Amino acid sequence: MNKSTGRVTLPSEQNFLNETKELMERWGADALRDSDGTKLDDEIKQLDAKIYTTYFVARGNNEFAEQHPEETQQLYLMSQFNTAKDKSLEIDFLKGYFEDQIKPDYIHNPKEWWEVINRTTGDVVDPANWEVKQETNQVIINQAEPWHEYTVSFLAYMIWDPTHMYNHITNNWGDKPHDIPFDARQPFSNQFMKDYLENWLKENPDTDVVRFTTFFYHFTLIFDNLGKEKFVDWFGYGASVSVAALEAFAQEKGYRLRPEDIVDRGYYNSSFRVPTKAYLDYIDFIQQFVAKEVKELVSLVHDQDKEAMMFLGDNWIGTEPYGEYFKETGIDAVVGSVGDGTTLRLISDIPHVSYTEGRFLPYFFPDTFYEGNNPAIEANENWLAARRALMRSPLDRIGYGGYLSLAYKFPEFVDYVEKVTDEFRDIYDTIKGVKPYTGLNVAVLNAWGKIRTWQTHMVAHGKWYKQAYSYHGITEALSGMAVDVSFISFDDIINNGVPEEVDVIINAGDAGTSFSGGEHWKNEKVTATLREWVYNGGGLIGVGEPSAIHHQGRYFQLANVLGVDKELGYSLSTNKYFTEEADSHFITEDVSTFNFGEGMKNVYALSEDTDIIVHTEDGIHLSSTTFGEGRGVYIAGIPYSYENTRLLLRAIYYSAGKEEQWKIWQSSNLNCEVHAYPSINKYAIINNSNVEQVTDVYDGNGNKSTITLQPSEIKWEEEQHEG
Amino acid sequence: MNKSTGRVTLPSEQNFLNETKELMERWGADALRDSDGTKLDDEIKQLDAKIYTTYFVARGNNEFAEQHPEETQQLYLMSQFNTAKDKSLEIDFLKGYFEDQIKPDYIHNPKEWWEVINRTTGDVVDPANWEVKQETNQVIINQAEPWHEYTVSFLAYMIWDPTHMYNHITNNWGDKPHDIPFDARQPFSNQFMKDYLENWLKENPDTDVVRFTTFFYHFTLIFDNLGKEKFVDWFGYGASVSVAALEAFAQEKGYRLRPEDIVDRGYYNSSFRVPTKAYLDYIDFIQQFVAKEVKELVSLVHDQDKEAMMFLGDNWIGTEPYGEYFKETGIDAVVGSVGDGTTLRLISDIPHVSYTEGRFLPYFFPDTFYEGNNPAIEANENWLAARRALMRSPLDRIGYGGYLSLAYKFPEFVDYVEKVTDEFRDIYDTIKGVKPYTGLNVAVLNAWGKIRTWQTHMVAHGKWYKQAYSYHGITEALSGMAVDVSFISFDDIINNGVPEEVDVIINAGDAGTSFSGGEHWKNEKVTATLREWVYNGGGLIGVGEPSAIHHQGRYFQLANVLGVDKELGYSLSTNKYFTEEADSHFITEDVSTFNFGEGMKNVYALSEDTDIIVHTEDGIHLSSTTFGEGRGVYIAGIPYSYENTRLLLRAIYYSAGKEEQWKIWQSSNLNCEVHAYPSINKYAIINNSNVEQVTDVYDGNGNKSTITLQPSEIKWEEEQHEG
Repeated sequence: MNKSTGRVTLPSEQNFLNETKELMERWGADALRDSDGTKLDDEIKQLDAKIYTTYFVARGNNEFAEQHPEETQQLYLMSQFNTAKDKSLEIDFLKGYFEDQIKPDYIHNPKEWWEVINRTTGDVVDPANWEVKQETNQVIINQAEPWHEYTVSFLAYMIWDPTHMYNHITNNWGDKPHDIPFDARQPFSNQFMKDYLENWLKENPDTDVVRFTTFFYHFTLIFDNLGKEKFVDWFGYGASVSVAALEAFAQEKGYRLRPEDIVDRGYYNSSFRVPTKAYLDYIDFIQQFVAKEVKELVSLVHDQDKEAMMFLGDNWIGTEPYGEYFKETGIDAVVGSVGDGTTLRLISDIPHVSYTEGRFLPYFFPDTFYEGNNPAIEANENWLAARRALMRSPLDRIGYGGYLSLAYKFPEFVDYVEKVTDEFRDIYDTIKGVKPYTGLNVAVLNAWGKIRTWQTHMVAHGKWYKQAYSYHGITEALSGMAVDVSFISFDDIINNGVPEEVDVIINAGDAGTSFSGGEHWKNEKVTATLREWVYNGGGLIGVGEPSAIHHQGRYFQLANVLGVDKELGYSLSTNKYFTEEADSHFITEDVSTFNFGEGMKNVYALSEDTDIIVHTEDGIHLSSTTFGEGRGVYIAGIPYSYENTRLLLRAIYYSAGKEEQWKIWQSSNLNCEVHAYPSINKYAIINNSNVEQVTDVYDGNGNKSTITLQPSEIKWEEEQHEG
Repeated sequence: MNKSTGRVTLPSEQNFLNETKELMERWGADALRDSDGTKLDDEIKQLDAKIYTTYFVARGNNEFAEQHPEETQQLYLMSQFNTAKDKSLEIDFLKGYFEDQIKPDYIHNPKEWWEVINRTTGDVVDPANWEVKQETNQVIINQAEPWHEYTVSFLAYMIWDPTHMYNHITNNWGDKPHDIPFDARQPFSNQFMKDYLENWLKENPDTDVVRFTTFFYHFTLIFDNLGKEKFVDWFGYGASVSVAALEAFAQEKGYRLRPEDIVDRGYYNSSFRVPTKAYLDYIDFIQQFVAKEVKELVSLVHDQDKEAMMFLGDNWIGTEPYGEYFKETGIDAVVGSVGDGTTLRLISDIPHVSYTEGRFLPYFFPDTFYEGNNPAIEANENWLAARRALMRSPLDRIGYGGYLSLAYKFPEFVDYVEKVTDEFRDIYDTIKGVKPYTGLNVAVLNAWGKIRTWQTHMVAHGKWYKQAYSYHGITEALSGMAVDVSFISFDDIINNGVPEEVDVIINAGDAGTSFSGGEHWKNEKVTATLREWVYNGGGLIGVGEPSAIHHQGRYFQLANVLGVDKELGYSLSTNKYFTEEADSHFITEDVSTFNFGEGMKNVYALSEDTDIIVHTEDGIHLSSTTFGEGRGVYIAGIPYSYENTRLLLRAIYYSAGKEEQWKIWQSSNLNCEVHAYPSINKYAIINNSNVEQVTDVYDGNGNKSTITLQPSEIKWEEEQHEG
């Protein structure tokens, strides 16, 4: 068999020509890229490969930036809480911020653009009652209410690009100048960006793909006075604010935003917050602007017969690939980091692009590539997590980042990546464009819906959070499951009802968060629509505190559909008799040890009609009930594991009332999964573990065979049709 | 030494004269009582003892009750939640209720007195849109909103007294007639009660003490359709409702109550609910009525030169001993069950009575007094729990209940009670009327304040609840601590500020409950007053979710005083750096293993100024901070134990900034406590454990001595004055 090639991007670096050629051959790479801090030799650029070149739009040109300090990017920031001890209160509003990053905006009148709020009452303080003391960066409140708490929301310039700041501090770059970010919305900057790109494109004829990293506005990343991370929100629109933006917003939307609409009590509209109308309007407004401007830059790239690739991260704010305006940008490709199945699908499902590319782990950096460590282990973990998701929705390309010279020193790793790249191409060539078998259609319901497709319960992209992991297991499980997945919002339900094709809805999250839904659950259109839909045969899976808001004697507003509610202490007087576990249940047939992660306390059954599957000393952790023709399933939490993936898949089948379809394209062993592609008469059985596994495999007709899979093996079979 | 006698009440029974005499002598009893189901012989009544006779006011006279069915006691009840599947909805509003207990009131017009509520929207359904179908006990809603949930609040007669029902069912009394409770507010019943008592008093000349069990209205106790407890609230005013009461209320308070004011979404104003103004008005209204009527009955008793004793339980509703009107009743004595230190103080602190009596455990019933069991063990546990509290505030009498003949069969128990009764009298004779040494003054702050003195976090009196035990440890610890304790409400704070004498305020409970405070924490008068008070030197101890309500970027509204807040998921984007525990801390000097009960998740330090004492994987469980001259202490939960008693006492001293006074009247061993009575120059060291203990003892001048205490020993010492 000829060795397959293509669909793989490698980083390269100077003085590494022969080894680069060798690795290109072994890994079948057809593209080369530079990285932050690496440049490619001319000789390398002449190899038979596409050349990607990293490009920064809004920073890295301090000469320009320093000429136009008024066009530096801005932020709205909130001071700490300050307690008034008498009628006069001095607030050091910069306290806790990093002076290398933040500079108050005294160009625009603070009386007009800042806001002082009494956080004890929620009242805005009349600007007549406070003064700014510019020389000490203080706000002085007169007529304060003693023993009330106050905050100042102030407009500031962000005088250091966050990624540059992060790398600079982390790598001790000393007195290397700080990249000043400038704002695409401002006249000089806007023109400069275009001129500069136009010129750059001409000066870089070897570049085939302009790898934008990224466009205009960095996700919110604020450092503290010690130069450490203070606030990081991968979704944060903090740095897109400016006086110009706020004025354009008022013009376009017909109303003015308050600083509070942006600082949001200090939460800064974290994606865990149920978004307000003002915030949704604001991000829509920014997305429109960004899309329009990106389109112009992409046109310049296309004019030079190059491709425009966007990195999904850093300055990606406003480019939401699942948003309304992304399709207008004309971007050719998106590349992003693949940490797991969820992030793979986040990239591979992106619509309106010619191709997607995933940067796999490990990054070729010394934190993994050091003597005594075997980077092939992390590569194997990463590949197993990614492969499940690839089987459902393949990336078009994969790639690596960091120092190729470092990876080259680890032969076992080089061997393993050769195997991975071959396997990737084999999968891709087999299934690209082929619809996989889909058992059921699952919708994840939250306050964000489609725009945050595969992005639920993320804070800083990829970081573990105690408050998130018990929910993140859901998306990770779904990313490689033989189900179709969509993300829908409460507004979708209100405006259009439940989409026809959906079999099962999952609502998962802590009470009050956007992912559970908070106030949306007081909307009778939402609750009535879902009750009717389940009653007529739909399946509802609630995880954690689904449909939770305390209202009219219920905490779970869909308690009647789920069969459970949570005790808040108000109804302790009512005896809770139903605590006995069912002897067995479809949902737990494969699993006997449970891990509900953070779990949940004090969930109880409404009546004897609820089937209690797992009851701990803290209450119900897993249960089901019927509601008309449909079913509700409650699960306390689903951290990611193969056991929980199986448990969730069974819960999906059960809630949809489709247990009889379980043994179609199914494996008996939960370490294995079956992916079928009926239109090409093929199916694959994958071993997600790194030990040998034996499993029964059920084909599309329910016929059983038993097979053995080597560690991490993928086995392709032809579908047998019955005579 | 002569054997002491008196202050002890025994139950007796028929045909048990000689043994009764023997036990009276050994235990020094000076009073005899009957019990439910036991009567006293005439010979026993002639013994040298006061005779208590149990008396029921509002039940036990079915002949009368059956003549006046319209005067049967009433309840407002709420149906189950019912989901409309189309425009018409039939609700079986009695579903889940016990037909032997509940009978709908069709005498008064349901259209006027009932309420149908759409629980999805909270709207009341226009009575024109529903009908009652009397023959099937249904409410039919026309024009229902499909897929909304509805409840019916209906007025019912309670045709079986709850205690009688409980005993009847528990003891299988078969076809014994059900006691029908009649209502003191109704004309015939009111007259009957007085006439009957007057007559009864004359017919029972041997009775010295009328032991009312109790007066008019039973705490809410509703059974389900299977004849099991459905709803029990020891504080519940459910059975005090009637059309007459509601009309009198409207007359007196100037506005009408809605059924919803009573059924309260099905929570029935559990004492965990933050009480509404309507409910506070209602219980005030009932208390006034009850006090006035009790006073008349007590007068009748006094007219016959007998004493009136009230049992604190059963039909005690409206008699709140810590309420406004109790002093007007003229009651001579209160007797109640002593399950622990908290319930002892609940009784012993009652004002306006000549004496209090505690019924100790175990009850002389076969569940404890069976062959092979040693009831002395439970008696010892009960005594150790009670004695701590006695040392602070002695009962005037103790007693026992049940079958004396049963206890008589357990000689070890008889010996032990002889020891207990002697010890009780010794303590009483020494300290009655003597002010014990008080280190500090502690106020427990919640939405109820004084009226629920020692009654926080109770549901069914004495029962363990998962949602309560981590807070109940506070009152239990306080009950025997050398501190003065008061219970104050938010209204007290708003109207009068923090009382002058208070050193430390404790706010403890789950968010949203009356004990934490819920909406009260949005009141700026509350938060500002407390901030100022702590800043000027006060101590605030928050347990669980103190001052919790999500408002203006804070969850704990006193986060700035406590130094901690709880992460709800909205501020995950903000890094939380402060997790390191202090090396040592005054609060934990004696304790190294911790038990925070249910604990709390996701509590974090606001800044490096917070001293983290215990940090678990769930977050901060114990911390302190300074706020001006004062201090805040956060504790995740305090289930009762000697370790936690010590920890709380240290937290009290620390928060008040009085660490230097720690070694005054103090023991080094946390199993022991020192109680000093400076005005009589005496102090006692008690061993709360049932093993030998050695402890250092610090006297009033801080002088240390070391003593050894036998298991459960109390040792009295004379105070040495320095020359």
